[in-house]
Amino acid sequence: MADQKKMVEAITSMDEDFAKWYTDVVKKAELVDYSSVRGCMILRPYGYAIWENIQKILDTRFKELGHENVAMPMFIPESLLQKEKDHVEGFAPEVAWVTYGGSEKLTERLCVRPTSETLFCEHYAHIIHSYRDLPKLYNQWCSVVRWEKTTRPFLRTMEFWWQEGHTMHETAEEAIAETEQMLNVYADFCEDSLAIPVLKGRKTEKEKFAGAEATYTIEAMMHDGKALQSGTSHYFGDGFAKAFDITFQGRDNKPAYPHQTSWGMSTRIIGAIIMTHGDDNGLVLPPAIAPIQVVIVPIAQHKPGVLDKAAELKARLKGICRVKVDDTDNSPGWKFAEYEMKGVPLRLEIGPKDMEQNQCVLVRRDNREKIIVSLDELETKIPQLLQAVHDGLYEKARQNRENRTKTATNMEELKKLAEENSGFFKAMWCGDLECEEKIKEEAGLSSRCMPFEQEKVSDVCVCCGKPAKSMVVWGKAY
Amino acid sequence: MADQKKMVEAITSMDEDFAKWYTDVVKKAELVDYSSVRGCMILRPYGYAIWENIQKILDTRFKELGHENVAMPMFIPESLLQKEKDHVEGFAPEVAWVTYGGSEKLTERLCVRPTSETLFCEHYAHIIHSYRDLPKLYNQWCSVVRWEKTTRPFLRTMEFWWQEGHTMHETAEEAIAETEQMLNVYADFCEDSLAIPVLKGRKTEKEKFAGAEATYTIEAMMHDGKALQSGTSHYFGDGFAKAFDITFQGRDNKPAYPHQTSWGMSTRIIGAIIMTHGDDNGLVLPPAIAPIQVVIVPIAQHKPGVLDKAAELKARLKGICRVKVDDTDNSPGWKFAEYEMKGVPLRLEIGPKDMEQNQCVLVRRDNREKIIVSLDELETKIPQLLQAVHDGLYEKARQNRENRTKTATNMEELKKLAEENSGFFKAMWCGDLECEEKIKEEAGLSSRCMPFEQEKVSDVCVCCGKPAKSMVVWGKAY
Repeated sequence: MADQKKMVEAITSMDEDFAKWYTDVVKKAELVDYSSVRGCMILRPYGYAIWENIQKILDTRFKELGHENVAMPMFIPESLLQKEKDHVEGFAPEVAWVTYGGSEKLTERLCVRPTSETLFCEHYAHIIHSYRDLPKLYNQWCSVVRWEKTTRPFLRTMEFWWQEGHTMHETAEEAIAETEQMLNVYADFCEDSLAIPVLKGRKTEKEKFAGAEATYTIEAMMHDGKALQSGTSHYFGDGFAKAFDITFQGRDNKPAYPHQTSWGMSTRIIGAIIMTHGDDNGLVLPPAIAPIQVVIVPIAQHKPGVLDKAAELKARLKGICRVKVDDTDNSPGWKFAEYEMKGVPLRLEIGPKDMEQNQCVLVRRDNREKIIVSLDELETKIPQLLQAVHDGLYEKARQNRENRTKTATNMEELKKLAEENSGFFKAMWCGDLECEEKIKEEAGLSSRCMPFEQEKVSDVCVCCGKPAKSMVVWGKAY
Repeated sequence: MADQKKMVEAITSMDEDFAKWYTDVVKKAELVDYSSVRGCMILRPYGYAIWENIQKILDTRFKELGHENVAMPMFIPESLLQKEKDHVEGFAPEVAWVTYGGSEKLTERLCVRPTSETLFCEHYAHIIHSYRDLPKLYNQWCSVVRWEKTTRPFLRTMEFWWQEGHTMHETAEEAIAETEQMLNVYADFCEDSLAIPVLKGRKTEKEKFAGAEATYTIEAMMHDGKALQSGTSHYFGDGFAKAFDITFQGRDNKPAYPHQTSWGMSTRIIGAIIMTHGDDNGLVLPPAIAPIQVVIVPIAQHKPGVLDKAAELKARLKGICRVKVDDTDNSPGWKFAEYEMKGVPLRLEIGPKDMEQNQCVLVRRDNREKIIVSLDELETKIPQLLQAVHDGLYEKARQNRENRTKTATNMEELKKLAEENSGFFKAMWCGDLECEEKIKEEAGLSSRCMPFEQEKVSDVCVCCGKPAKSMVVWGKAY
């Protein structure tokens, strides 16, 4: 157990320094390495395997809903980026510019895509002619680049991996329905696959995407009470269509502009998983996206039959879960700590004494509960326990969010809440940018969203006292 | 049938202008669109779906062999690219340079990766310490950029999509075995999944990858007799390891340099599929990677029961093949031409008369053979016919290659062969760069490879008449 202690001691505790704890987990669980390019991360095999599992679930869901994948170029000519005014204002300050090809200076600079609305619009202008060509439901998996000043693995990196859906519709109603549908896909994914409860709502004008008419968001609460924007879905109306001259012949034979959406989820969500479920022993992974769901650790593996039994169990289980045997010559204690650090949901211990009694020990990562299970029952018990881990993680996260969600009716209350702790603070808002900026300045809180499920916690704006238009959830954000 | 004729007429015939035929197919089959970035292509849904099928098959095979996926940054600092002398000489003239981040000029230029050896080496230097850390078997799926002067969709584009495997081994023998193994994976994939026969061999010094000790290649022959390099696998020895100071503690407790490989296959292979199997009616896809393997075309679909029957057949077949019903109001003739253009391997026609007789018509894309099949036998007949299409395509390609493979024993013969036609020309070589360059200059032929299966077609070099070292296959290449 000396080994185990050593590894556990090696990470900072969450209470001592949450930011340091986060960086320790990311590194010790071998999710990420740093490269010599400032602010860019390397996704190591274990980190990338999590992303692959996320991709598989989302991609299947997107395709079930009729979306098709495409691949756009990674470069955008400066003139193309400039076509939509709000969009270029939002993104131009934070793009990487290619100015040379080999030794030849380019006549027009190319930016590395920070997002691909402009590229999709240029393509849609080529291929949309008639209402029969609509809807176009495209998605792409790629990486994008934003020239960030300060970066942290997963949460904010210069380059990150994501999917970006870009769709075009005949009517505004259909486009709005798509925007809402995709937000619900993200919300369901977070809750059902990642065990992360999320708050659905609409962004304020200040916080919406550059060029969008409306941005919808799902906001998750991290263990430390800070918010993390976990997925967004944007409705563009026909603004880009007009800027890019995309028209189609409508059912009435008249030319019309299509209505547009985009929606994205990125590797940032891995940061949310870490900060929602992790603990002082390391990562804790929700079973649906865990690269290894069950790790088999042989006990006294030099004793006859133990390794054979472990291999036999793996062969039995590989049809129902992602399973691995660790038969290296590290000590069991070292292995326990290693797979706890990596957040593997279930550990299966099997040794000579267990074998005599036709049983094994299963240990849940989330609460360290030990369960002795007959080897005959593994095929039923393991799926049950994986579900129990998921449910346990979800419930813990939900409770944390509930405990940290408070209500304020005036600025003094709001400032006091923000000083005392991080969390989701419900307060009414008049809708004015001025009040939103004052709340940011005085309480250090940004508007996370105007939840779809509105509550009337007061009649007046928490800031100016004028009549309120909507309830906003405020918080500190990653 | 007027519709069908119109579509067929719209593409140039192969014999008239092979290059134009190729561009027509790429566009009419909706594989690709052009963007406003010179030399970059957009992979449209149908083109990308082919790439996804290729990815699935290769990725599964890589993982079976113990490889793990990672994601590296897309940027390489100039100083990192320069660490290995031969490598930077090969790539620096053709990279895109990022010089600005937002409005800030960078102190060091970053190139957009043309390939990622340098990034992998930097990472390996961090994580390889002991022989216990070896082998490292990493792969990544991404796009890379090479600043090409002239471009053609799939064959040569500024940005292209690929996978790049990068592995590190304890010994030279293991690394060489990996290099050969991965070449065989590519060769088997081409033959078993793409129905493309390939020639395996080693590249000459002149043609090998910048920085490699040895480059192995698979060369395919296109319908017009030109060669297409379809996958490469490189052995690096410990050259990069020394340049990047990657050392490990060996079994003898002494420090040692690991031995390295890399290997890649790209979207270029889609160009090979098009030019190996396509015909004057458009694309012809090998079943293993066809996005739609069977298209059901209802005949007289307004008649009662026809569309229901088509839907019922689709439901029955979707467990055994990728199947689609086209129930749009286009004419059957239009649909026939459309799915021929898109290269769908099998067409299933079902109409009222067929229904009366409990049968349907199946039409093979490769040879247009029509087969009447009882509806009761579909589940056995369709897999058989898909296999027959694969075999037919392979055999046709193999025969084309055989017909166009010739032997030359002196320069006059070689020049005459090269003038008369394109093909694979077997001729002996002394091993000198001078002769290789002269053959390029005088006959317009490059060395495709030194095949693993050597034949002694003469004793002396086809160019200088000195004693020959090996047989080379020469050709014109894409």
